[in-house]
Amino acid sequence: MDRTADVGRSRLVDEGAHVVVAPDSFKGSLSAADAGAAIAAGVRAAVPQARVTVRPMADGGEGTLVALAAAWGVRTHEVATVDALGRPTTARWAASPDGRVGVVELAEASGLPAVADVPLRPLHAHTRGAGTLAAAVLDAGVEEVVVCLGGSASTDGGAGLLTGLGARLLATDGAPVADGGAGLAQVAALDLSGLHPRAGVVRWRLAVDVTHPLVGARGAAAVFGPQKGADPAQVAALDAGLRRWSALLEELTGVRTGDLPGAGAAGGVPAALVAVLGAELEPGVDLVAGAVGLPEAVADADLVLTGEGSFDAQSLHGKVPAGVARVAGAAPSRPPVVVLAGQVLLPVAQLRAAGIAAAFSLAAGPSGRDELVAQAADRLREVAAQVARLVLGTRR
Amino acid sequence: MDRTADVGRSRLVDEGAHVVVAPDSFKGSLSAADAGAAIAAGVRAAVPQARVTVRPMADGGEGTLVALAAAWGVRTHEVATVDALGRPTTARWAASPDGRVGVVELAEASGLPAVADVPLRPLHAHTRGAGTLAAAVLDAGVEEVVVCLGGSASTDGGAGLLTGLGARLLATDGAPVADGGAGLAQVAALDLSGLHPRAGVVRWRLAVDVTHPLVGARGAAAVFGPQKGADPAQVAALDAGLRRWSALLEELTGVRTGDLPGAGAAGGVPAALVAVLGAELEPGVDLVAGAVGLPEAVADADLVLTGEGSFDAQSLHGKVPAGVARVAGAAPSRPPVVVLAGQVLLPVAQLRAAGIAAAFSLAAGPSGRDELVAQAADRLREVAAQVARLVLGTRR
Repeated sequence: MDRTADVGRSRLVDEGAHVVVAPDSFKGSLSAADAGAAIAAGVRAAVPQARVTVRPMADGGEGTLVALAAAWGVRTHEVATVDALGRPTTARWAASPDGRVGVVELAEASGLPAVADVPLRPLHAHTRGAGTLAAAVLDAGVEEVVVCLGGSASTDGGAGLLTGLGARLLATDGAPVADGGAGLAQVAALDLSGLHPRAGVVRWRLAVDVTHPLVGARGAAAVFGPQKGADPAQVAALDAGLRRWSALLEELTGVRTGDLPGAGAAGGVPAALVAVLGAELEPGVDLVAGAVGLPEAVADADLVLTGEGSFDAQSLHGKVPAGVARVAGAAPSRPPVVVLAGQVLLPVAQLRAAGIAAAFSLAAGPSGRDELVAQAADRLREVAAQVARLVLGTRR
Repeated sequence: MDRTADVGRSRLVDEGAHVVVAPDSFKGSLSAADAGAAIAAGVRAAVPQARVTVRPMADGGEGTLVALAAAWGVRTHEVATVDALGRPTTARWAASPDGRVGVVELAEASGLPAVADVPLRPLHAHTRGAGTLAAAVLDAGVEEVVVCLGGSASTDGGAGLLTGLGARLLATDGAPVADGGAGLAQVAALDLSGLHPRAGVVRWRLAVDVTHPLVGARGAAAVFGPQKGADPAQVAALDAGLRRWSALLEELTGVRTGDLPGAGAAGGVPAALVAVLGAELEPGVDLVAGAVGLPEAVADADLVLTGEGSFDAQSLHGKVPAGVARVAGAAPSRPPVVVLAGQVLLPVAQLRAAGIAAAFSLAAGPSGRDELVAQAADRLREVAAQVARLVLGTRR
């Protein structure tokens, strides 16, 4: 901290410091909203005159929909759709309080866990259900659709999603191509005449946290295919299908997607959405930060508290703590960012580069994992109180 | 922190903040000196421009001698003496670098652990060996003798210590009275003619951490006798002996010791030293703080780090963290005091009254006790670095 910031902080302490609380969920223990509430309670107990702003965070992956709904104070809507194997299911979405932004999680409809009850069918799994879900969001009249990628069962290049929105994939004989990655090898034409009328009107934003391209050795099929059940021959078939699909999309739209960083996310969903709908790819944590108003919240913050279950090497790549630190680092007050985590596995020497002032574990001493999970809310409150007193002054 | 302190702190950060490191030992894991070194290393790694002053602390009980020797950078001396049952042994003492202050631990010569190899003899255990040790310290020409009480095997009212210094306890027939609490029932006269010539010249300071009186229901025999092996009848006999001893001392010196708070420490040793030698009783942690120069060190401190193995309800009563906080609270810069501990069992709400800003556990997450003990030095360095960065600024 330089002198100016320090004096500024002192002034704000006198008037009531501003503390921003922006945690991720604590996996297996607390939602981001619950974690935020516990941290906020600790801060208020330690520094009663503090103003506390809670902004539950997520990284754009699983749980982002729920976290955004909690941050916005809205309820989720439920829509009838199909899962990645075409079986009936329901999926949720949420809208911002002003109705302007709709949020869907791809995995809500087309996720891997929902089809784990039967043998994996990597060539046939698809994202049509997510398209049906997205169509419902468009029906609600939003101006912007946020699609959180990740956790998908499919490698269909987003073809299913377009189909769910009303497009048709046709083979050379004019017959509809079957859903799933295998079908992409037959696709000869894309009929967009039936596309949802608002699909081309709204802004599409895709939350991604990988930089993998659509095809090739680092592509969707090669890297993520195996965990969706694809054997080497199937990986090759899926990669060939994505190449054909990408070529067709480029032919139609002029947009190259084969080597676009991030196009390999969620079985290649970005390929279709970027080429056909002009979707933008954004790091998930940045997108969520914007959606919950984190940049505005931290603008005059004196302290920012974030956290997650395990603060480790992964945390500095696309995860909430590093994202929150990036946002806070751009704030004029340059508030210190402190991470509270079930376990802290990063040496302090690695925090500086990430713009994180300190990271503290919730453990109060020797304790087992289950014990720590069970006491997470209590411990978050205590450690948050410690940090708040330390940073904002103790007035003994 | 008020604005003045904050601005002052900022100035010092720019010039190189001053961090004072004053931990207790971490029982079963690190000496106070080793803990201090680990904490200092963490601070220096996190804030290279900081000036770090290490003052290993102790609470006046077991380990104080070694901690003071480490703080002073001196070696201990060894003296031939006897244990609490009169068997030959050796005991250590240390002198301050200027030779002015000598330190002895009562338990070094007359401690309970050293006689645990045979059945306890509560009526006969004595402190004569500590007197022999003290005589050696007087021979060295010190001007002040610090006696750390606690851990004794005896309940002899300090009679043995006077004997070791050359006094003689005589029965009504003029015969010497036997060592140990039982002998006090026979004592009729105290012959000080053979007392070490410097015993009455030096200043005697007794480090105590209990407020129990010499006799009665809260006295040395009733409260501490049982843990030294005394059954109810022996407790009564020891209490009666201490009453007689106290009456004799008052007769001789005019000093009342029976209800003096703290006179019940170490089997009543203060009674003899206060009445005969004018010894002063002081809370051990305050005495140690003065001896290691803690008040001078914290006068311009920006942050004070202390610690101990377990930070719990006991810690606020006569232990190092609360004592360090008291000293720091009296410093003009009113530096925040942060406790680092193997386990933190005190709720944050109880820290404020003790003048402690925050307390953090060494645990980085789920971990067993042995693991934590084994990693104590590494973890101390890490957590100290976190706290130093947080308090002294991060300069991203």
